[in-house]
Amino acid sequence: MAFQKIKRSEDYSKWYNNLVINADLAEHSAVRGCMVIKPYGYAIWEKMQQQLDKMFKETGHSNAYFPLFVPKSLFEAEEKNAEGFAKECAVVTHYRLKSDPNNPGKLIVDEDAKLEEELIVRPTSEAIIWNTYKNWIQSYRDLPLLINQWANVVRWEMRTRLFLRTAEFLWQEGHTAHSTRQEAIEESERMLNVYAEFAETFLAIPVIKGIKTPNERFAGAEETYTIEGMMQDGKALQMGTSHFLGQNFAKAFDVKFATKEGTQEYVWATSWGVSTRLMGALIMAHSDDEGLILPPNLAPIQVVIIPIYKGEDELEIISQRVKPLQDALKKAGISVKFDNRDTQRSGWKFAEYELKGVPIRIAIGPRDLQNNTVELARRDTKEKMSLSMDGLTETIQSLLEEIQLNIYTKANDFQKNNIHCVNTFTEFEMALEKGGFVSAHWDGTPETEEKIKNETKATIRCIPLDSKLEEGICVLSGKPSKQRVLFARAY
Amino acid sequence: MAFQKIKRSEDYSKWYNNLVINADLAEHSAVRGCMVIKPYGYAIWEKMQQQLDKMFKETGHSNAYFPLFVPKSLFEAEEKNAEGFAKECAVVTHYRLKSDPNNPGKLIVDEDAKLEEELIVRPTSEAIIWNTYKNWIQSYRDLPLLINQWANVVRWEMRTRLFLRTAEFLWQEGHTAHSTRQEAIEESERMLNVYAEFAETFLAIPVIKGIKTPNERFAGAEETYTIEGMMQDGKALQMGTSHFLGQNFAKAFDVKFATKEGTQEYVWATSWGVSTRLMGALIMAHSDDEGLILPPNLAPIQVVIIPIYKGEDELEIISQRVKPLQDALKKAGISVKFDNRDTQRSGWKFAEYELKGVPIRIAIGPRDLQNNTVELARRDTKEKMSLSMDGLTETIQSLLEEIQLNIYTKANDFQKNNIHCVNTFTEFEMALEKGGFVSAHWDGTPETEEKIKNETKATIRCIPLDSKLEEGICVLSGKPSKQRVLFARAY
Repeated sequence: MAFQKIKRSEDYSKWYNNLVINADLAEHSAVRGCMVIKPYGYAIWEKMQQQLDKMFKETGHSNAYFPLFVPKSLFEAEEKNAEGFAKECAVVTHYRLKSDPNNPGKLIVDEDAKLEEELIVRPTSEAIIWNTYKNWIQSYRDLPLLINQWANVVRWEMRTRLFLRTAEFLWQEGHTAHSTRQEAIEESERMLNVYAEFAETFLAIPVIKGIKTPNERFAGAEETYTIEGMMQDGKALQMGTSHFLGQNFAKAFDVKFATKEGTQEYVWATSWGVSTRLMGALIMAHSDDEGLILPPNLAPIQVVIIPIYKGEDELEIISQRVKPLQDALKKAGISVKFDNRDTQRSGWKFAEYELKGVPIRIAIGPRDLQNNTVELARRDTKEKMSLSMDGLTETIQSLLEEIQLNIYTKANDFQKNNIHCVNTFTEFEMALEKGGFVSAHWDGTPETEEKIKNETKATIRCIPLDSKLEEGICVLSGKPSKQRVLFARAY
Repeated sequence: MAFQKIKRSEDYSKWYNNLVINADLAEHSAVRGCMVIKPYGYAIWEKMQQQLDKMFKETGHSNAYFPLFVPKSLFEAEEKNAEGFAKECAVVTHYRLKSDPNNPGKLIVDEDAKLEEELIVRPTSEAIIWNTYKNWIQSYRDLPLLINQWANVVRWEMRTRLFLRTAEFLWQEGHTAHSTRQEAIEESERMLNVYAEFAETFLAIPVIKGIKTPNERFAGAEETYTIEGMMQDGKALQMGTSHFLGQNFAKAFDVKFATKEGTQEYVWATSWGVSTRLMGALIMAHSDDEGLILPPNLAPIQVVIIPIYKGEDELEIISQRVKPLQDALKKAGISVKFDNRDTQRSGWKFAEYELKGVPIRIAIGPRDLQNNTVELARRDTKEKMSLSMDGLTETIQSLLEEIQLNIYTKANDFQKNNIHCVNTFTEFEMALEKGGFVSAHWDGTPETEEKIKNETKATIRCIPLDSKLEEGICVLSGKPSKQRVLFARAY
């Protein structure tokens, strides 16, 4: 294949970019910072969507759709949220083009079609949604309101990277309304757990659940919960967040409800989201120098069958043998592709499906026909084995489960081995250089957090939910601390 | 229920608007011309999406995602397409807001953050997609390229109506590339047939397949195929279009491929789409003065079970009896809701599910418990019947099929009875007043088409694909014509 192969050890960042392009997942578009998600990449995203959507519905949520645009006056209503996103907003100011009188065939903005009020392309939908909820919520009977939206959003980022940070991205955003503080907090935690379960069971990435420091909180939230994954270079990737919004949006949009007792109260809110960024996590957590390694639960093609043949007659005989296997696999719910193209040689195909991370490759040649066998290769371990055609569907089924588990276990071992517990700033800096997460005492002040960030580029990823109370002293300031927090350099 | 009930016979247009609002399908948003699709409406749209997506994949298409924005220079590349959409474009000119120095807490557009080149919010994606295809297509081996996108698009319409015409709407747009003219034409026709099959089998709306006159063609197409449905007021609704784009976009974006013979040729293209407009068609084709009538194949709730009880004990006994029925229905793939809310009376619930178009309502009271029966009501015919609990799942299964067919048959009879074949302009005008479609001879000139439109508000919906060649004279000009075309007033 005619592309540059980069090893992770040479340049991790370049390896990532090349892999996204070479595996046909996504590419840069003609629009600054926006990506094109190619069919193979989109097929993986669709599998993520289907599973998440199922989990949202099982936890009582319904989907709905709200406008792409937010009028400026609504956008600025919740001041902290507005301030947080103001610097990265795409703004629609006109609604018409006209012919350019000086340039036949070209168009210019029609200045007569200026909007009275500018429209912001949604960077997130709290404003437009809470302005709508105002009319949907009158009484405690209307609560809880549990809604999710699948949508595109735009944040005008200056430095972009495919999947990880793009001006436009696809995501889901849950927006819920509750009658009590406690119920809203429980909802934020429930959705964090849904994300963690999805990450571990489908993406095969172990995550650390925690809460963000005030510095790193979502603009407008009272508490931000996060799941943090560790990439192969030891850096952290924030994979999903769930926010307890308190009554901030209810107050900004005046959303009150009549309680059972007849009083009027402001509503309590949450919001939570994951995005196409998860594609970046999936790629960076598992893949190797040969290409993608996809967990079977998200692989668009789980099994590829490649015929090894000379001439059409041999291909015909192999195809006849493959047909019942294909049918049996499909019947068992396994997605299988028989690549019988005669435009490419089998060696090319082997490399292609390795690059694309297909979990199981089956090759069938003339000798296999004689012996009633196939050659099966695992993408994750690169093991090859010769297997009987008899009972092959069951073997593949359990092998796919084994591969899913193996990919997770490998990532989990890596994570466990790369969380460093330190007690001094020297240890802190040394641990960071080794790569991975650093568990350290912090004095709880934003000033220390900022100083550490400036000196080391490490941020507090989260205060882990399972972190034990423990007396200690801050690695930087030496002031007392009651709990370790998790630092890392992050994407 | 506290809303105004309007009859179709009083004011069809108002009846439609009220129904969309009252049945909780959609509502107007704070953004001019943009709608909020509410959970119940979105659940119907999701069912449409799932089925269409399946049909697209079965015909060999893959999904992908392209940017929301189109740089102006790309937008204007295909001149006819650009001209067709220029007057209804939302234009992004800036990428940042800043604090308003004169208004603390308020934001204004940051004039320092003006884009060098304006971005158009896509009204359709041919331009951005063909600019991308340029890099994807080199040789005949790369063809055909069969891609679909699910996305939001924006067309700044001045007069909007929920679902039927909104500034932002959701749709799918297929964009395919082919090596021959013939293959592209076949693709356009194939997708028209997919749309027609979907309309008839799922929406239960019979459609007329045809081609548009040059006047009514998609901007940039060489041929536009359409499916036209007849609403209950006799007006036409264009439900889906499929365009043969010739080599227009390939030439505008210089997309050539190497043929097997080694020559360089421009690629042939199609595009095709259906949108949330189909929600409007679904509502207007079948519903009555009491509310929605949903075809079972698209109903989010196919069966609702309502307990008739006094006191908690009775409810408990009914619930126990309902449980196995619910389970059996779910197992059979039927979506069922047991509405055991004690906040609403059963009469209120009956009206609610009638309004929401649930195909089958089952009521169970104390006498039913004694007799091992239920009372079943069909939404489409309003028939009620007392049925034994034994074998009820099978009865319901076949009843749902019968309802689907009955709704289609009713719409089909209505359509057949309201296509009027006329030979003079007086007959033409009288037929239009009766309502429905008019089949008439037309001289083939855009001038006559325009005159008829101005005088009668009727447009040529299509030249039906099954229309026979037949000598005749144009109803307006008296000039010779070889074929009847279909006129109607349209949404």
